Amino acid sequence: MKKIKKSEKVLVSVIYKFVDENLKKELVSLRRFFHKKPEEGWCEFFTTYNIVQYLKKLKCDVYYGHNFLKPGERYGLCSNNDFELSAERAKNQGVPESFINEVTKGFTGAVAVFKFKNPGPVCVFRFDIDALKVEESNNKDHKPYNCGFMSENTGFSHACGHDGHITVGLLLCSILSKNSEDLKGEIRVIFQMAEEGCRGASAVIKSGFVDGADYVFGGHIGISTVKTGELAVITDGFLATTKLDIVFKGKSAHAANSPHLGKNAMLAAAQFVLASSAIPRFGDKITSVNTGIFNSGTGRNIIPDSAYLKTETRGYDSEADNYMQKEVIQRAKGAAEMYGCDVEINTAGKACSFASNSELVKMAKEIYADMTEGGTILEKSFTASEDFTNIAVYAEKTGAKCAYFTFGSYLAGPHHSSDFDFDEEVLFNETEFMARIAFDILKN
Amino acid sequence: MKKIKKSEKVLVSVIYKFVDENLKKELVSLRRFFHKKPEEGWCEFFTTYNIVQYLKKLKCDVYYGHNFLKPGERYGLCSNNDFELSAERAKNQGVPESFINEVTKGFTGAVAVFKFKNPGPVCVFRFDIDALKVEESNNKDHKPYNCGFMSENTGFSHACGHDGHITVGLLLCSILSKNSEDLKGEIRVIFQMAEEGCRGASAVIKSGFVDGADYVFGGHIGISTVKTGELAVITDGFLATTKLDIVFKGKSAHAANSPHLGKNAMLAAAQFVLASSAIPRFGDKITSVNTGIFNSGTGRNIIPDSAYLKTETRGYDSEADNYMQKEVIQRAKGAAEMYGCDVEINTAGKACSFASNSELVKMAKEIYADMTEGGTILEKSFTASEDFTNIAVYAEKTGAKCAYFTFGSYLAGPHHSSDFDFDEEVLFNETEFMARIAFDILKN
Amino acid sequence: MKKIKKSEKVLVSVIYKFVDENLKKELVSLRRFFHKKPEEGWCEFFTTYNIVQYLKKLKCDVYYGHNFLKPGERYGLCSNNDFELSAERAKNQGVPESFINEVTKGFTGAVAVFKFKNPGPVCVFRFDIDALKVEESNNKDHKPYNCGFMSENTGFSHACGHDGHITVGLLLCSILSKNSEDLKGEIRVIFQMAEEGCRGASAVIKSGFVDGADYVFGGHIGISTVKTGELAVITDGFLATTKLDIVFKGKSAHAANSPHLGKNAMLAAAQFVLASSAIPRFGDKITSVNTGIFNSGTGRNIIPDSAYLKTETRGYDSEADNYMQKEVIQRAKGAAEMYGCDVEINTAGKACSFASNSELVKMAKEIYADMTEGGTILEKSFTASEDFTNIAVYAEKTGAKCAYFTFGSYLAGPHHSSDFDFDEEVLFNETEFMARIAFDILKN
Amino acid sequence: MKKIKKSEKVLVSVIYKFVDENLKKELVSLRRFFHKKPEEGWCEFFTTYNIVQYLKKLKCDVYYGHNFLKPGERYGLCSNNDFELSAERAKNQGVPESFINEVTKGFTGAVAVFKFKNPGPVCVFRFDIDALKVEESNNKDHKPYNCGFMSENTGFSHACGHDGHITVGLLLCSILSKNSEDLKGEIRVIFQMAEEGCRGASAVIKSGFVDGADYVFGGHIGISTVKTGELAVITDGFLATTKLDIVFKGKSAHAANSPHLGKNAMLAAAQFVLASSAIPRFGDKITSVNTGIFNSGTGRNIIPDSAYLKTETRGYDSEADNYMQKEVIQRAKGAAEMYGCDVEINTAGKACSFASNSELVKMAKEIYADMTEGGTILEKSFTASEDFTNIAVYAEKTGAKCAYFTFGSYLAGPHHSSDFDFDEEVLFNETEFMARIAFDILKN
Repeated sequence: MKKIKKSEKVLVSVIYKFVDENLKKELVSLRRFFHKKPEEGWCEFFTTYNIVQYLKKLKCDVYYGHNFLKPGERYGLCSNNDFELSAERAKNQGVPESFINEVTKGFTGAVAVFKFKNPGPVCVFRFDIDALKVEESNNKDHKPYNCGFMSENTGFSHACGHDGHITVGLLLCSILSKNSEDLKGEIRVIFQMAEEGCRGASAVIKSGFVDGADYVFGGHIGISTVKTGELAVITDGFLATTKLDIVFKGKSAHAANSPHLGKNAMLAAAQFVLASSAIPRFGDKITSVNTGIFNSGTGRNIIPDSAYLKTETRGYDSEADNYMQKEVIQRAKGAAEMYGCDVEINTAGKACSFASNSELVKMAKEIYADMTEGGTILEKSFTASEDFTNIAVYAEKTGAKCAYFTFGSYLAGPHHSSDFDFDEEVLFNETEFMARIAFDILKN
Repeated sequence: MKKIKKSEKVLVSVIYKFVDENLKKELVSLRRFFHKKPEEGWCEFFTTYNIVQYLKKLKCDVYYGHNFLKPGERYGLCSNNDFELSAERAKNQGVPESFINEVTKGFTGAVAVFKFKNPGPVCVFRFDIDALKVEESNNKDHKPYNCGFMSENTGFSHACGHDGHITVGLLLCSILSKNSEDLKGEIRVIFQMAEEGCRGASAVIKSGFVDGADYVFGGHIGISTVKTGELAVITDGFLATTKLDIVFKGKSAHAANSPHLGKNAMLAAAQFVLASSAIPRFGDKITSVNTGIFNSGTGRNIIPDSAYLKTETRGYDSEADNYMQKEVIQRAKGAAEMYGCDVEINTAGKACSFASNSELVKMAKEIYADMTEGGTILEKSFTASEDFTNIAVYAEKTGAKCAYFTFGSYLAGPHHSSDFDFDEEVLFNETEFMARIAFDILKN
Repeated sequence: MKKIKKSEKVLVSVIYKFVDENLKKELVSLRRFFHKKPEEGWCEFFTTYNIVQYLKKLKCDVYYGHNFLKPGERYGLCSNNDFELSAERAKNQGVPESFINEVTKGFTGAVAVFKFKNPGPVCVFRFDIDALKVEESNNKDHKPYNCGFMSENTGFSHACGHDGHITVGLLLCSILSKNSEDLKGEIRVIFQMAEEGCRGASAVIKSGFVDGADYVFGGHIGISTVKTGELAVITDGFLATTKLDIVFKGKSAHAANSPHLGKNAMLAAAQFVLASSAIPRFGDKITSVNTGIFNSGTGRNIIPDSAYLKTETRGYDSEADNYMQKEVIQRAKGAAEMYGCDVEINTAGKACSFASNSELVKMAKEIYADMTEGGTILEKSFTASEDFTNIAVYAEKTGAKCAYFTFGSYLAGPHHSSDFDFDEEVLFNETEFMARIAFDILKN
Repeated sequence: MKKIKKSEKVLVSVIYKFVDENLKKELVSLRRFFHKKPEEGWCEFFTTYNIVQYLKKLKCDVYYGHNFLKPGERYGLCSNNDFELSAERAKNQGVPESFINEVTKGFTGAVAVFKFKNPGPVCVFRFDIDALKVEESNNKDHKPYNCGFMSENTGFSHACGHDGHITVGLLLCSILSKNSEDLKGEIRVIFQMAEEGCRGASAVIKSGFVDGADYVFGGHIGISTVKTGELAVITDGFLATTKLDIVFKGKSAHAANSPHLGKNAMLAAAQFVLASSAIPRFGDKITSVNTGIFNSGTGRNIIPDSAYLKTETRGYDSEADNYMQKEVIQRAKGAAEMYGCDVEINTAGKACSFASNSELVKMAKEIYADMTEGGTILEKSFTASEDFTNIAVYAEKTGAKCAYFTFGSYLAGPHHSSDFDFDEEVLFNETEFMARIAFDILKN
């Protein structure tokens, strides 16, 4: 692994090119631009449009819509109603209808591909772009409210910092574009839709844009108790998870007159939630299961003919999560059989366990020490789920080395809360660090 | 059908007053007028307004709004949202805002009180006025569609024939008004809101307008396999029922990180629906219980902090239903305790078992034989629930005699279905029969 | 009670032959003889031996052991341990070991076949012979204790009156034997084992001894609130029932170290008992289900690998019971699947709904009126289960007419209780009535 | 902490006194003596008698029966039947009836108290003495079978090595007795009954013999993958556990005729086992719960009036286990309430989490290094439960330092299996080590 030193000429020139006040201003401005237009996963029409517009000005190939994604493996797609409402909103915000038609019904996101002159390794950076169905705070202390860049999309907000991720991704592309002559090999910067709920990564894998990667990098703002200015590499603790949409289908009947003619989907589902909650842990590995949504029935005096459940499993690692998933499915099938019902089980998301590659951990430490004149990168456990892991584990199978970083920031509120906000300084740190990785690996 | 015995002088004069073609025309016209504006229980703004306008022209006292109903015992009230939407619609249909303000938030319905000169018994007639949340059929064969009087209130329809009941009630009032000199005692014609779900009768009782009744009559169009032109008196088979809204309240928590901090309302509710479904029958009396609606949870990865259930019990008689209700409540409380949750149980409706008074059955047979020159009234079992029974059982406790009739009609579809429709001839039969009862009991 | 009409010549001569004091003495003596040696179903070694010994002295063919029963359809057989203990006891009571070997492991019971000279109808009488696992009362007021004929088989007693049934059956055979010249056709008197739990009748059917029957009769002492001296014919209310032995088989594992390796049969069974208890009634027909025994597990810290359940269903009629049985089986299979367990479901007993043939009801009324000089037979509902119904329904399919009677008696305690006892006068009534039926149908 | 060196005169003399071939022979002989007479917890009549006889010959005070234990806190006592059967067996094995009367019904175990001349610390050693309900192997390879010291008590065996513990405890006493002049302070050697199921320690605490302790030591043969000759000190991994006996009491009723009169204890228990199995883990700490025994009901057609459950909870630490216990109790109470049943919950055993005192760990390392001329003691996690922890945690509250050791041995089969056996060499190692601890702390 090449060790970068400040003394090295090429790098210095690079650093000068991108570490300046203009960069900072652009980062803040771009972040706030995206923050105002948060969109749910698979509905990132405005977001994708503006990413694509930005990338088209750079020296790279841009892929989006059906040129990026293929039909299969797109988990947890939105309802048609959500697609329509989001499209309407995006059109009102200036996105051309023709563009929306290219990306709607599950084809959002984009990829910038930089093919440099000289041969070299293939390096993938992945940034996630979707927002959450969380109403943003309009509290006086909430900075987006104070500073006038609060969400304009009622009911949605970037409460997980992906607006920052988009921004860093775009600026990284800008830097790569400006310095393309100093680089070799290939860089793919993936702007991934629908990370929330671990829905989008599998479609990214299926797109083929991860194939042939030698390095894959991802990161997140402000996770795992890392303070502002600090940086951590994740060496543990990605909980493997599976999101399942489970529908029990029975038969309705008048509950007082002919209850025996019904097939009670609600009771089947009730048996299932109890049985699945009682799945024992996997040996000494931590597991969990939760059904977070249960909607069933059409009227008080009607035997319910359907029950719609949203369930998730988690496990200390993929083995444990696979065990949980298998047990959940078994219990769902058995519960359906008990009541003569049918059951449909659809994967609505998935992430696996993962640990950053130890060589990359070493490399990151050196880069960070260099960048901060002696600073120490932390090693942290993630204690949550991220579908970047799917991409990483997929890439590792064909020999890639992968790493995931957490960029420290003061947080105004917890992730996914209405008063979440981060310190914009982190954008600068993350951009520099990611750029340094690129230059470290691919400089001529 | 109109084979009236001419021998009785007084009655003949009465008959001539109301049995004419104008009556028939008015019945049909009024019925279609109300059919076009179906409104759900507690939201009968247009309906009540037009009932009141009609009654105000007659020789009776009219009570409505807070002059009719008192605050308590109003089961299964609508949501504020429903009140607002219905009010808006009624205003657009010409109901003055001031009137809506008098009846909204649970004060619909009206009573016409006729106090005749000479003392005599107090006779109560009860007609129900609410419609159903059933989209009306626009099939070519559906007569309301064909003949241009289909529901104009999208999503609602008079799929249980209460438009006919209103009409008969109003025409009965008209007849009473025209013949007031021939009558003695007092007649109260109650136009009851919110019969569907057995919600309104208890409020009628609390209003005081049933107090002191010597006779109470009610009826329904086309129930219990009675053919057009036939008439039945119900001597059995009102299933006692209780409608319960059950809310489990727990505490949310992140399902993967700190599941032990949650209080899982969904699991409590799941245990409850199983346990309540397993309540054994009451000896050799038929019982049933159904939870027809179960909505719980806010997100896939959140321990659900609430569960909203709509449950009903039924029993062969009130004793059996009371047993079921008691057992349901016990199971709900226990289930909540299991999971450290709270549970709120609210009665959203109630009806009891009832059989028509045998003396009135005899009287009805005579009236019917006279009206039809020898026709025989049927004795039928109801095999459903009706909250008229609450009023009747209440009145019986203070000595009243009560009876309930079913007026036969060909039906285009089953009750509560979108293609329900009845033969308007039944309106004439019902009006005459009800008027004859009034004259039979209260003629000077 | 003995007011016999003297006009009929043939009958009179018959009556003289069997209605005498010696008969009464023999009835009481025989009943007490069997009462002292109560044996559970399928273990009636002493009982069968003594029935056979009695019958062998009469003019009939006697079938028992493998000459009576065939291997299949023998429900709810005893454990080997029970067979051994019962055999040991019977040997000590004088039954030859060779005889026990002929009837053990599910071949108890016997049939007496009378083939009369002249051709005529085939008439089957069925009497049940097994006792109950109920410790008999040794209260001073308990007549068997007082009069010295209490059960000598600890833990068992004739608490359902089958000792009386055996006695009547044997005396009926004695009367038939004495009067064989006056009769035509064929009479089969079946002494059925294992009626309790509705276990034995199916094996009787499979034996072939019901085939070709034109008439089938059965009866019981003291059921359905019939007073001493009264007699009822059952026209309704046999609850159809199915007895199921259900075994869930899973896999044990250490509950704290490796719970994920277990397949929890106890949880599967728990889900099943809840789910099966929640089966709704069959329309307006009464149904019920009960799991009365649930034994599971081997140690506190072991995931239970098995659960043994004893379940029964009942229904207003066989259609309703079949529905219940089907639903129970479905729920058991689903519950097993939920937990990756296997489930075995064995029928341990079965009875169906039945009503006495209306022609036989008429005949019985006439016989009874004649026998009692004008007495009226009652028509009663049975409100319990009896596996005679299986035999009757089977026979009806090939054209037989069947009837079941209840012979009134004062009872010292409820059926199946430790202080059950009946008035021995009933034995005389039943014997005479059954004999009169035989003569009425088969007299030359 | 005083460091012992081989050069120290006093110790050397001590060592010479007890480390000899006679000691070895006595250890093996005593161990086999007790191995032949395994007795379940609370029924250690033969065992206690022989311990007491041995101790009475030494220079110590011996406490047993009511002089040792007080009535309360004696968890998981045997049934009267078990007491009687064990007493009968012990009498046949030569234990005087008078002695059995002193210790029966929950008063087994004994304590030897050595009060030395000079004042000094109070040091407690605890050895457990009960056996298991496990049939011992009679396989040819099983050494106790081969060498003729197999269990003579059918169905029971020392499959957890407590026979070794007794032996070491007695020999330790013997050594202390021989060297009493060299020692100061006080030593209490507790021979604890009923360790299996974590039942006896609480009674030991209540006895008062732990009060005032400055040091408490315990140990086990062959746990936690420690090889023969090795020794480990446990610094982690005692799973806290609670054993609960749970009885649901309802009301029986005839399941077909009057099911509404019953209170179904089986259904309450079924709801409970499901609900308790669904208790989520305590944050990121491992927990578990198991109901290992479930017996309910008296007859197929009777609503079950009782259900007997044996349940246990475990947790990574006492906080986690207390959470589990609290949740289990809550669910049991709620389940009972659901069905109108009562529930009794009795603690049948308990152990908590514990880690050896770090100063004692250091001391142990030095002693071991000295004893083995440089050997290293291991630090191990226990990964199971032991009720020694109750005693240790109690003592720590008043300032005591406590430690628990594992003495390595080849094992012929896993603990609690029928072919369990250990290498008797371990007895020598354990005795020497425990004696060295005593001398290290209490030498004059």
